[in-house]
Amino acid sequence: MKKKKNKEAAAFHGVKIIPIGGLGQIGMNMTAFEYEDTIMVVDCGMAFPDDDMLGIDCVIPDITYLVQNADRVKGIVITHGHEDHIGALPYVLKELNVPVYATKLTMGLIEYKLEEHGLTNIVRRKTIKHGQSVNLGCFRVEFIKTTHSIQDSAAFAIFTPVGTIVHTGDFKVDYTPVFGDPIDLQRFAEIGKKGVLALLADSTNAQKPGYTMSESTVGHTFDTIFADNTKSRIIVATFASNVDRVQQIINSAKKFKRKVAIEGRSMVNVVKCAESLGYITIPKTMQIDIAEIKNYPPEKVVIITTGSQGEAMAALSRMAAAVHKKVQIVPGDVVILSSSPIPGNEKSVSKVINELSVLGARVLYQDTHVSGHASAEELKLMYALTRPKFAIPVHGEYRHLMSHAEIARSMGVDKENVFILKCGDVIELTADEARITGSVPSGGIFVDGLGVGDVGNVVLRDRQVLSENGLIAVMITINRITGELIAGPEILTRGFVYVKEADSLMDEAYDVVSDVIDEIAKRRISDRTKMKGMIRDALSDFVWKKTKRNPMILPVIMEGED
Amino acid sequence: MKKKKNKEAAAFHGVKIIPIGGLGQIGMNMTAFEYEDTIMVVDCGMAFPDDDMLGIDCVIPDITYLVQNADRVKGIVITHGHEDHIGALPYVLKELNVPVYATKLTMGLIEYKLEEHGLTNIVRRKTIKHGQSVNLGCFRVEFIKTTHSIQDSAAFAIFTPVGTIVHTGDFKVDYTPVFGDPIDLQRFAEIGKKGVLALLADSTNAQKPGYTMSESTVGHTFDTIFADNTKSRIIVATFASNVDRVQQIINSAKKFKRKVAIEGRSMVNVVKCAESLGYITIPKTMQIDIAEIKNYPPEKVVIITTGSQGEAMAALSRMAAAVHKKVQIVPGDVVILSSSPIPGNEKSVSKVINELSVLGARVLYQDTHVSGHASAEELKLMYALTRPKFAIPVHGEYRHLMSHAEIARSMGVDKENVFILKCGDVIELTADEARITGSVPSGGIFVDGLGVGDVGNVVLRDRQVLSENGLIAVMITINRITGELIAGPEILTRGFVYVKEADSLMDEAYDVVSDVIDEIAKRRISDRTKMKGMIRDALSDFVWKKTKRNPMILPVIMEGED
Repeated sequence: MKKKKNKEAAAFHGVKIIPIGGLGQIGMNMTAFEYEDTIMVVDCGMAFPDDDMLGIDCVIPDITYLVQNADRVKGIVITHGHEDHIGALPYVLKELNVPVYATKLTMGLIEYKLEEHGLTNIVRRKTIKHGQSVNLGCFRVEFIKTTHSIQDSAAFAIFTPVGTIVHTGDFKVDYTPVFGDPIDLQRFAEIGKKGVLALLADSTNAQKPGYTMSESTVGHTFDTIFADNTKSRIIVATFASNVDRVQQIINSAKKFKRKVAIEGRSMVNVVKCAESLGYITIPKTMQIDIAEIKNYPPEKVVIITTGSQGEAMAALSRMAAAVHKKVQIVPGDVVILSSSPIPGNEKSVSKVINELSVLGARVLYQDTHVSGHASAEELKLMYALTRPKFAIPVHGEYRHLMSHAEIARSMGVDKENVFILKCGDVIELTADEARITGSVPSGGIFVDGLGVGDVGNVVLRDRQVLSENGLIAVMITINRITGELIAGPEILTRGFVYVKEADSLMDEAYDVVSDVIDEIAKRRISDRTKMKGMIRDALSDFVWKKTKRNPMILPVIMEGED
Repeated sequence: MKKKKNKEAAAFHGVKIIPIGGLGQIGMNMTAFEYEDTIMVVDCGMAFPDDDMLGIDCVIPDITYLVQNADRVKGIVITHGHEDHIGALPYVLKELNVPVYATKLTMGLIEYKLEEHGLTNIVRRKTIKHGQSVNLGCFRVEFIKTTHSIQDSAAFAIFTPVGTIVHTGDFKVDYTPVFGDPIDLQRFAEIGKKGVLALLADSTNAQKPGYTMSESTVGHTFDTIFADNTKSRIIVATFASNVDRVQQIINSAKKFKRKVAIEGRSMVNVVKCAESLGYITIPKTMQIDIAEIKNYPPEKVVIITTGSQGEAMAALSRMAAAVHKKVQIVPGDVVILSSSPIPGNEKSVSKVINELSVLGARVLYQDTHVSGHASAEELKLMYALTRPKFAIPVHGEYRHLMSHAEIARSMGVDKENVFILKCGDVIELTADEARITGSVPSGGIFVDGLGVGDVGNVVLRDRQVLSENGLIAVMITINRITGELIAGPEILTRGFVYVKEADSLMDEAYDVVSDVIDEIAKRRISDRTKMKGMIRDALSDFVWKKTKRNPMILPVIMEGED
């Protein structure tokens, strides 16, 4: 019986789809497609660290499998220029130098990253237009125009030997985008008519009923706010990458005859990039440097800035904390937060709003944002157009994937043809059948400073203990040969309690340690590990009894030369 | 001119109101009222720590001013039994043993706290009924029935020599509460008719337009969910303190003939307390122990549990992580989160929802919660009934206080009679006038384990550094007299990088430190502080260059005996 099954499995031969990231959590989107000698990858994103990943800068996908099969990897195609889709590129390309394909603005944003990492001259890359295709081994990948909260986003139709697979990337159905064409629904329909084997679509807003509003609706809100506040300076914080949002702020500024100053490193970079590529238009006479705002009356100025998520180092947070060098918030200022907090950022956003309010600013943070992701009805539209045999929800937390799966079933995909995968799962598709046939290494690799992957769970656990209760170090020096005490014990604490309070406590701790050392001498214990263990246990018990705290106890036994 | 002003200030003699906590942030509510030889205090709450208060258990108000004037403090009156109004009582009563006055359920919950801290026989306390008054020095305090997300909440009419001050506590206008009488609007109106000098009202939902829904609406939602899921086990997580919510779950369970098991320490405690005092009714035959659930078919059981905020140690989180000893989540289970995430908890709540979904549970977390705080229109009603001369918004973040201030002005309070105070501000009221006349020490005191106030900013900063990059300790032992090196250098890291990765790096670090020690010897430096500084600087530079990280560097110089 078992043998037969194995035989069958051996005979089963299809296109493999391997989500390397982007499932079960937000960020780090990366999916591999494989058939015989061809592997191609869609997106290469990073994730921002969770609260318990202390000190970590960002998280990138584990590409062990791709590196092991480097000779077969033909290239990476990118759906759009958000960090969770391009952020890991510099790290991955250092390990795996394959060509990168993307649309113009997306490529422009990638260029910045490559430059920062000194990879400009090493990485091969090609800009693709919507409607064009790229041949990658036995796959042909067509770029289809979509709409999202960044310009130039694309979905992919991947033509494989077993059938056509559609990967939507992040998308919404925007009939009236601020710039460029709406999503190319006709092409999705045309491909769907010819037959789609599998659909991998964006799950982020699958739990939201109805439709996501058009980006252009935000423009009307800006106009209203500008009209209501003709006597105030206006400061708008939004995502740097939301080029269309920035354009709409500029449009309102133009209507109300205000100068525009751009502030915040990523905002300046993205606007420069988008402007040079023609994705954003700022009349020459309108743009002023942030240093020049003092030369204009407040009611003639708009500042567009980063920091809408309350990020501690971003420009808006510095303004709110009154430490920004060029912008002082004064009573009467109107500050618009044109974004909604990403889960986990709610408290920092609140803090910034409160600080701005204390300084006298009026802070508006409702109704000036729309999502960039398809709600339930838009997902249904995508299913109606493509009519896939198999559905593989991507992009989202587990609960979002679950809701997406329900939508897929409600749109006629067979229950057993909807697959909720885990990162690293290998699903294999033939024209008739899909099976999970294996798994590859997956998960996040921590980036901390220059280190990639050198911080793991042990280190994080240590940081956790240190962060909660600090440490107590106990040092003694003993004679290498006789084992006699030469120096110490010395006791030292950091992050534990006030030195003043610690004084008497540490006197007692000194006695506790001294007693242990006496016992060690009396029992003639010479094993260093055992000695350390005895010191640690005694001190740990004592401290817990006295304070109900568990600092890290670090016994050090040095050996003297004399 | 200045002299005259001082003279005037000296002549100015009114009732002082001092917000010791509860302004500008959520939690730690405490307000002092003072006139001549009388000080009385309303509420005594704690706050949960912010993300950057590493390792802190809770934060309590700084009562320096009250302790300094202990002989004049006549008592503490409590509005209701939530942690942010009673949580600091055990700590404060240890410093300041004054009588406590509260309604029956509130006192019941206080009893638990006193017992935990061994204060039962020390603290004087008196249970007060709505409508009754307490005389505290020259003040008379009347308890007025209000409605909130916990039973037995009260507002206070404080009759003072200069006029009547109304303090609402946390409240909403619930005409159809689940248990007991609605808010006593007539009494507010009666007192208002006679003249109210100042109103201190709840600002939490001042930014929400309209009215907050009645608690009883949630009962209908429960009934619908129970009717839709007659084949599933139902698990409901909510705030332990929301006794009415728990009652409504029990009511639905009764209608649908399910047994009820209570789980989670605080849920068990609160339900026991509320039941013994008659605030909650569970038919004897319905309640089962959590250990007994296995004796009943799943569709005959409801589990009411703590953990609706995703708290790591709460029962629901343990079920979600599949480590709960008595409840295993199985496919088909329906889990209701009857609460909305408190700001800062969104991510932990998400995590629990995802984990429950992975285990196959259907998680419902919308439409099963209403707020316990008055929205804008209810605040207007309170102003319409009391018609205060002065308005002092309390309870809320700064932005909430600001919105509340706008409502007060829109209801006819003079612009200059609306005061947004900071914690520690002293506002003095006469029958005609209000002035901010001073300030007292205020702010939060950190509680960490058994320690109250022994963790301050230096300790927290150390914990921050340790949490982000760990530490490197460098130890050397030198001869006390000659200064010669006896042992070391020894280098040790925690929370920095993988030991494996650190190996070669630490070899190099060892060389860096050895070079410094050679230099110290050569230059005959004997000042310990200088020696430590040199080691720290050299190592810190080296590590930053190599890793772009800033671990805490801890040089220790021990002196040998020999």
